[in-house]
Amino acid sequence: MNIDALRSGDRRALARAITLVESTRDSDRGAAEKLLRCAMPHTGGALRIGISGAPGVGKSTFIEAFGSQALAQGKRVAVLAVDPSSAREGGSGGGAILGDKTRMEKLAADARAFIRPSPAGEAQGGVARRTRESMLLCEAAGYDTLIVETVGVGQSETQVAAMTDIFLLLLSPAGGDDLQGIKRGIMELADIVVVNKADGKLSDAATNAAADLRHALNLLRPRLASWSTPVLLVSALEGRGISETWRRVDEYRALLEADGALHARRRRQARDWLWNETREMLLAALKHDRAVGDALESALGEVGDGKLPASVAARALVATFMRSESLATSTAASTVTTPAASTVTATAASTTT
Amino acid sequence: MNIDALRSGDRRALARAITLVESTRDSDRGAAEKLLRCAMPHTGGALRIGISGAPGVGKSTFIEAFGSQALAQGKRVAVLAVDPSSAREGGSGGGAILGDKTRMEKLAADARAFIRPSPAGEAQGGVARRTRESMLLCEAAGYDTLIVETVGVGQSETQVAAMTDIFLLLLSPAGGDDLQGIKRGIMELADIVVVNKADGKLSDAATNAAADLRHALNLLRPRLASWSTPVLLVSALEGRGISETWRRVDEYRALLEADGALHARRRRQARDWLWNETREMLLAALKHDRAVGDALESALGEVGDGKLPASVAARALVATFMRSESLATSTAASTVTTPAASTVTATAASTTT
Repeated sequence: MNIDALRSGDRRALARAITLVESTRDSDRGAAEKLLRCAMPHTGGALRIGISGAPGVGKSTFIEAFGSQALAQGKRVAVLAVDPSSAREGGSGGGAILGDKTRMEKLAADARAFIRPSPAGEAQGGVARRTRESMLLCEAAGYDTLIVETVGVGQSETQVAAMTDIFLLLLSPAGGDDLQGIKRGIMELADIVVVNKADGKLSDAATNAAADLRHALNLLRPRLASWSTPVLLVSALEGRGISETWRRVDEYRALLEADGALHARRRRQARDWLWNETREMLLAALKHDRAVGDALESALGEVGDGKLPASVAARALVATFMRSESLATSTAASTVTTPAASTVTATAASTTT
Repeated sequence: MNIDALRSGDRRALARAITLVESTRDSDRGAAEKLLRCAMPHTGGALRIGISGAPGVGKSTFIEAFGSQALAQGKRVAVLAVDPSSAREGGSGGGAILGDKTRMEKLAADARAFIRPSPAGEAQGGVARRTRESMLLCEAAGYDTLIVETVGVGQSETQVAAMTDIFLLLLSPAGGDDLQGIKRGIMELADIVVVNKADGKLSDAATNAAADLRHALNLLRPRLASWSTPVLLVSALEGRGISETWRRVDEYRALLEADGALHARRRRQARDWLWNETREMLLAALKHDRAVGDALESALGEVGDGKLPASVAARALVATFMRSESLATSTAASTVTTPAASTVTATAASTTT
């Protein structure tokens, strides 16, 4: 895998590059990191758009219409999915629900678009890590419009908001005339709220829902001081409201770029990502450490039952881990060069079999 | 410091115990952990109430009235503060704004109440850790009603919600007739919303604000399926609405206890605390590792500038840390028994001077 193939814009090369960074095989990681390092000078040029919505709000219909309009304007669109819940079927091109190409036929058929199903069967953090790396590869491959979608399981919206420039929340009236039951914490992330299915029988319900949402959003402090989160009525099915959504997205982007907020936000996101990765890698190494193993089980039990303060248990676990690491490495010193989760797991597994 | 003095209910003994767990001196940590272990069988009996509100909403007046009513019902009340922003003045009994005894004269004068100012000048995580430990000590000392208050800087509300059974959000009309500018993310945490200052000139504004809030909360999925977050009108100054607030708190508690949710929530909170402590201790150890030092600075720079993917930088830092730990410890093996943040800091400092 080399950077020129990726830079050529060939979709198969991009797909192979993403498969490489998604690989959990230790032998692939070196090549993946080399590729990512080469890709970095060519990244950062795309607008990174996060889109989230519960099942049934018409997310794929919306992304199909929204992405197609971008293609019509000469943009190159890549769609990536963060979906911690779906099960892997038949490999990375398989049957994950999010990003499934059959959901977005027009986009998938267009040579200027790239759609990547979500890798699945992994911890949430793992999926998000690979999606971030895949975003970078898409940018290096020349895509100028990245759409990262999530169905909103667990913390996935927060993860997507943390890797994108603008976050769109999709809602739709569920047949009744209100929107009760918006997942807690998600409305706070939205830069733009889209009320989809504003058509046919749901038309009035959508209008009422939008009014309620505007009222509720009014109470919240805006994320960007100069921006007030709009609530847009859209019928992705009939193509209405899509241009207006793009107009608002572009307006937001201009605002971000004008006052340097985009640069600052991406810088902060990258650094937060660094700290989170580091924390998770260290925790994964501890969890898979042989010496920690049994102590961990009993610590979880005692802490959960209120017999031991978590702070005390944590100190003991960390102490055990550090001692164990020093012993393990002093006998087989130079081999520990890549102590990331996968390596450590592999090591732990091979020593116990 | 022994457990009997703490269990006797003597306020000075409790104050000394909290000072011990707050101590960052390595020599105190062993005694602190011993005390905490002895305290654990006597913890868990209190209702843990989180209260947050921006400056100016009348938080201390509210807590004074709310706490006094609990005392009148024969309860024993402890008030702890999480305030990452204030500067330490004159030690732990000093002039931190939150929890300052002069703010709550009636409570402070009552022998059945305990008020503890916030320790300050520390990282947010550190303050929250010590507040959790202090909560346990208060429970062991026989307090059955814990109030953990925060002014809501950074992530402090989330931290307080993560260590309490019920979370009260205090708001007040600011003189205008609406509540615009509620901090993002905070409304989602509230189990009960209190609109304070529903008196005098602000009376109508408070009523309108409450109506707006009820409407907005209607759109959100409740945190507890069988609970719908009430919005209460309160005048802490005139003592109105305090009984109603207590009635709702008791109702919520009954609901939590009836279906086992309280036990499950505390179990989850304790385990989350364990993982978070472990992550932070490992990260602190890495940050203070001599070998990592320079690499960290350049990694932060390159990652922030988009020259290096955070995932790649994190792997390199973790690898450097693990190698360095093994070398450091193989030359001075048995000394590393308590690798928590403070120890590591002390070690790093002493080796560089």
